[in-house]
Amino acid sequence: MSRYFPLTREVFWRQAACIVGPKEGQGPLAPFFDRIEKDDLLGQTSFEQAEMQLQLQCAQMLLQKENLRPEDISLLLSGDLLNQVVAAGFCARELKIPYLGLYGACSTMAESLMLGSMVLSAGYGTNALCMASSHFSTAERQYRFPLEMGTQRPPSAQWTVTGAGAALISTVLPSPLVITGVTPGRVIDLGITDANHMGAAMAPAAADTLEAHFRDSHTKPSDYDRIITGDLGQIGSDLVCEMLHEKGYDIAPVHMDCGVEIFRGMQLGSGGSGCGCCAVTLAGFIRNQFMEGTLKRILFTATGALLSPTTTQQGESIPSIAHAVVIERRQSC
Amino acid sequence: MSRYFPLTREVFWRQAACIVGPKEGQGPLAPFFDRIEKDDLLGQTSFEQAEMQLQLQCAQMLLQKENLRPEDISLLLSGDLLNQVVAAGFCARELKIPYLGLYGACSTMAESLMLGSMVLSAGYGTNALCMASSHFSTAERQYRFPLEMGTQRPPSAQWTVTGAGAALISTVLPSPLVITGVTPGRVIDLGITDANHMGAAMAPAAADTLEAHFRDSHTKPSDYDRIITGDLGQIGSDLVCEMLHEKGYDIAPVHMDCGVEIFRGMQLGSGGSGCGCCAVTLAGFIRNQFMEGTLKRILFTATGALLSPTTTQQGESIPSIAHAVVIERRQSC
Repeated sequence: MSRYFPLTREVFWRQAACIVGPKEGQGPLAPFFDRIEKDDLLGQTSFEQAEMQLQLQCAQMLLQKENLRPEDISLLLSGDLLNQVVAAGFCARELKIPYLGLYGACSTMAESLMLGSMVLSAGYGTNALCMASSHFSTAERQYRFPLEMGTQRPPSAQWTVTGAGAALISTVLPSPLVITGVTPGRVIDLGITDANHMGAAMAPAAADTLEAHFRDSHTKPSDYDRIITGDLGQIGSDLVCEMLHEKGYDIAPVHMDCGVEIFRGMQLGSGGSGCGCCAVTLAGFIRNQFMEGTLKRILFTATGALLSPTTTQQGESIPSIAHAVVIERRQSC
Repeated sequence: MSRYFPLTREVFWRQAACIVGPKEGQGPLAPFFDRIEKDDLLGQTSFEQAEMQLQLQCAQMLLQKENLRPEDISLLLSGDLLNQVVAAGFCARELKIPYLGLYGACSTMAESLMLGSMVLSAGYGTNALCMASSHFSTAERQYRFPLEMGTQRPPSAQWTVTGAGAALISTVLPSPLVITGVTPGRVIDLGITDANHMGAAMAPAAADTLEAHFRDSHTKPSDYDRIITGDLGQIGSDLVCEMLHEKGYDIAPVHMDCGVEIFRGMQLGSGGSGCGCCAVTLAGFIRNQFMEGTLKRILFTATGALLSPTTTQQGESIPSIAHAVVIERRQSC
C-alpha cells in the first residue's frame, strides 16, 4: 500500500507569518522572521500564557496580511508541546475558527499542513490556518527541569525554540506556492531513552518516512532543491543522512535541518527543537527562499519525539514520527 | 460559510471494538462491551502502560474481527487525555500504521471519525482506524489529585471512564453503516473555572456545534433517532437541552449523553467522562442499537474540555469543544 498521497487537487500555500523570541532573533534566520519579541513573556504573567499569545498574535498577523477575518477561515489545525495542547486550544478560543487539535510533538507543523491540505483538496472548506508553537520556558518546565535549577545540559541536548509559525492554505486564494503531496509517518522507536538525545531518537523516523516517500512517489533526493528535516539537530542530521545512504538514497547534498539552521553558530548544544522550530523556519526563511526563486520544490519533513516526562520516568524509550509534505513553486513569484 | 460538510463520498463504518475496566463492566452498558477487564492495570506496572495496552488490544481486536493486518490500514487517527498523548503514540509504535495524533480531550473519538472520514472520502487511503481511550487512574493523577489522597468529590464531578473504543472506517469494505457528514466545532468558553464542573463548561460548546449543524445541514432534531452527546453528564445534559431550546431547537426527546448512560444508576457523581467514555459507548452500545435496527440516523457529538492542570492553577476558565458526526444506516444490517 502506498504511503505517499498525491493531492487530488493542488492546495495553495497563500501566506505565512511567524513570531519568535529574543534568542531566535539573535540567530542567523533573524532577517526572515516577521516579528522578534524583546520579552519572552510577551507581557503576560506566565510562560504558558506567553505561548498562547505567540499563537494568537501570529494567527492575527497572518489574517491581517491577507485582510481576512477569522470567519473567512474554514478550519484551524494547530498544536504545541504543552500538556493538553493548551496554547493551541486557548488560541482557538479567541479566534473562534472551527478547530482541530493536533499532537505530533515537533512534527506538528507538518501534520497540520498535511491534514489541512488533504481536507481542503477534498472540498471541505476553502481556507485553512495551519499553525504550531513552542516556548523554551514552558518546554523546559515540562520535559526537563525547572529553569531555576540552572541544570547543566549535555552537548547532545537541543534548545527549544520560542516561536509560533502559521501558514494560510487555500483552494480559492491563488499562490505560486502549492502543496502537491504528503506522506504520513509511522511511529518508530529504536530504543533511545535519553531525553537529551532527541536527534538520535528522531532520525530513524525521518529515515523511515523519507524512504517510503521516495519509493512510493517514485522520486529521488535530487528531485528536490531541499529536503528539510526538523528538528534533528547536528547529531540527528548526520544520522539520517547515514541511515538513508545505507538504503541507497543520498540526501546529504540537498539536506537541511531546521534545528541546525535556526541557531547556527550559537553554541546551543545540538541545535533547536520544539514545534515552533520548523514552523518559524518554514514560515520565515524557507518561504523567503521560495519567493526569491532559490527554491522550486522541497520536501518538508518535520520530526516529533512522542515522549512525555512520565514515560521517561517510567523507563520507556522515545518513540518518534516524521510527516513529509511536498511544496512546489508553480510559476515565478 | 457553512460549518457542516456533507461527505463527497459516503464512508463505511465497517467494524468496531471496545474494552473497558471493571467499573464500566458493572454498569448498564456491560452487555455491549467486547471485553471487560478484571484488573484495571491489565497486568502492567503503571496505569499509563495499562492505558496503552487498552488501545493496543482494542486495535488488535478490531483488526482480528475483520481478519486484517496493520498493513491493510492506511491511517491510524487516535488520541487520549495523557500529557503528550502517550497512550495513542505508544500504541501507534506497536501497530506501525501511519499515525495522526489528535488532541480533542473527550471529543477525540468524534475528531478522529470526522478527520478520518474526510480524508478517506477524498481517496487518501482506503481503511482508517479511529480510536480514543481514557483511564480513571491516569486521569485522576493528571487532572485532579493522586488517588492515594482519597479526595472527596463534589456531586457535580464526573468519573473518568477506563476504556478504549475503536472504529474501522473504509471506502472499500462495505457496511450498512455510513458516515455522511461532519460539523467541526469551535472552542467556546463561558467562564466556568471549576474542574469538577465539566458538564457545565462543555454544554455551551455542544450547543454551539449542534446549532451550527442544524442550521447548515438544514436538518432539525427530529430528523435524528438519537442526538448523542458525550460526556456532559446529567448537569451538562440538562444545560445543553435548555440552551438549544432557547434557540428554537428541542433536542430533549432524542437526546442521549454517553456520560449519563455509562454509569446510570451507579451514583458516580454527574456521570462518566474521558475520551474513552463516548468511544466505548459508540463502539459498543450504539453500534449494537444500529445492528438491532433501533437506530437509523444519529448525530454523534462528542464534547471535550481543553483545560490542563496548569491552566486551572493559573486561574484560567475551561475552554470546550464539540465535533458532530452524522452516522446513518443505509439498509438492513
